[in-house]
Amino acid sequence: MRLRLDLAYDGTDFHGWAAQPGLRTVQGELTLALATVLRVPEVEVVCAGRTDAGVHARGQVVHADVDEPPELDSLVRRLNGILPADVRIRGAAEASPYFDARFGALWRRYAYRIADRPAALDPLVRSHVLAWPRPLDLDAMNSASALLVGRHDFASFCKQREGATTIRTLEELSWARDDGGVLVGTVRADAFCHSMVRSLVGCLIAVGEGRRPVAWAGEILRAEARSPSVAVVHAHGLTLEEVAYPPDEELEARVLQTRAKRVADD
Amino acid sequence: MRLRLDLAYDGTDFHGWAAQPGLRTVQGELTLALATVLRVPEVEVVCAGRTDAGVHARGQVVHADVDEPPELDSLVRRLNGILPADVRIRGAAEASPYFDARFGALWRRYAYRIADRPAALDPLVRSHVLAWPRPLDLDAMNSASALLVGRHDFASFCKQREGATTIRTLEELSWARDDGGVLVGTVRADAFCHSMVRSLVGCLIAVGEGRRPVAWAGEILRAEARSPSVAVVHAHGLTLEEVAYPPDEELEARVLQTRAKRVADD
Repeated sequence: MRLRLDLAYDGTDFHGWAAQPGLRTVQGELTLALATVLRVPEVEVVCAGRTDAGVHARGQVVHADVDEPPELDSLVRRLNGILPADVRIRGAAEASPYFDARFGALWRRYAYRIADRPAALDPLVRSHVLAWPRPLDLDAMNSASALLVGRHDFASFCKQREGATTIRTLEELSWARDDGGVLVGTVRADAFCHSMVRSLVGCLIAVGEGRRPVAWAGEILRAEARSPSVAVVHAHGLTLEEVAYPPDEELEARVLQTRAKRVADD
Repeated sequence: MRLRLDLAYDGTDFHGWAAQPGLRTVQGELTLALATVLRVPEVEVVCAGRTDAGVHARGQVVHADVDEPPELDSLVRRLNGILPADVRIRGAAEASPYFDARFGALWRRYAYRIADRPAALDPLVRSHVLAWPRPLDLDAMNSASALLVGRHDFASFCKQREGATTIRTLEELSWARDDGGVLVGTVRADAFCHSMVRSLVGCLIAVGEGRRPVAWAGEILRAEARSPSVAVVHAHGLTLEEVAYPPDEELEARVLQTRAKRVADD
């Protein structure tokens, strides 16, 4: 059967999602725990968003194929008993055979959090909120963000890779302050290319600080080429919050459509 | 002048608020940083709530007397430059000479956070949310909490100390789930005696699990004596969220009234 797992992790002490020999990764810890609990030599897992080193997740989704259907509550309990405290399984479910955590996703939603004034500083969340030494202008950041929403070639914000498309549909990019005064950016797209969210945020911080005018964000986008004036901000402010999938009966069509369109970073 | 500082800390690596020789404490770190920035040999600070080892604060308030009025924005910046990352100054203000962080407080509000199911587990907040292995009944916990609200002798929930009163006014005790499914207890009183919040929560968890009936909370209260059947829960789920003070013109009267009533733990 095909298994769906929902998980959350604190990315601080991980070298990102993807397994790498000799490095502590989320995929490495998860496959090890699954193999132990399921008593198999190896388990292959596929995730919705291959987060970089230092990036966190609250809504990561993976799928894996298992020979014998496990009892799901007990599976969650046993995995959480084995996994280190910085990864937690939040749910397990039997999925449709067409469910594909990566290619079935409709969109991925990330949050980028910034404490830009002393009153917003909170040591209890310092692992996933960037402390910024100067106040940022929320309205300017939202105006600049609006220029980037839509279907565009995001080459200016992507690490270029031979042959991979950088055309994406940015469905949402907006900023608000939470109850504690923390600036929260919501970034939602069908998929992201490598370092795209952190480059977008780097561009918008420059606008929020007043170092660049609002229109600059649009100019960077239209250049369709990486600019050294756009900084890639720190990973630790970024969290994968949610991944959405179509209903089961539309899964197969969605996977075929996505696979045909692109095989790139999510 | 009298200075008011608002601060937040992650209590994980502190032996509580109160300075103790050879131990890392919040008071110890703060007085050291203040002495350095103000270039004085020593600074005495008085806080609103002397939190125990492992307890966190988002709304801790302290006062201190300084000879020369410092520039406040620069003071905050310089203190945060010196203090370790697990303590942050959120604001500094010139206070009335009658302002007393401890005796002037009208009430203190704490939150106790519990993740009682896998879907509520979030490694990003594991420093200040207790993971509980069994689901808790929110309604039962609220019914039991209602029996404890009001002015009572809380001796059953206090570490007894010679001569100190254990009469307190519990103004609020209620439970709700936040957006992530975490059970959040709000506990507000004029003041608390030692280990009171954690004993109240220990009693209510027993009810929430169904190990005890709702009425048991009232029986414990009326016994007016410590019972071994009430557990003092872990410190790390507890956070001092807010301390309220009267307007400046009522400060002097409030301090005199509080001092006359009790000199006990807050």
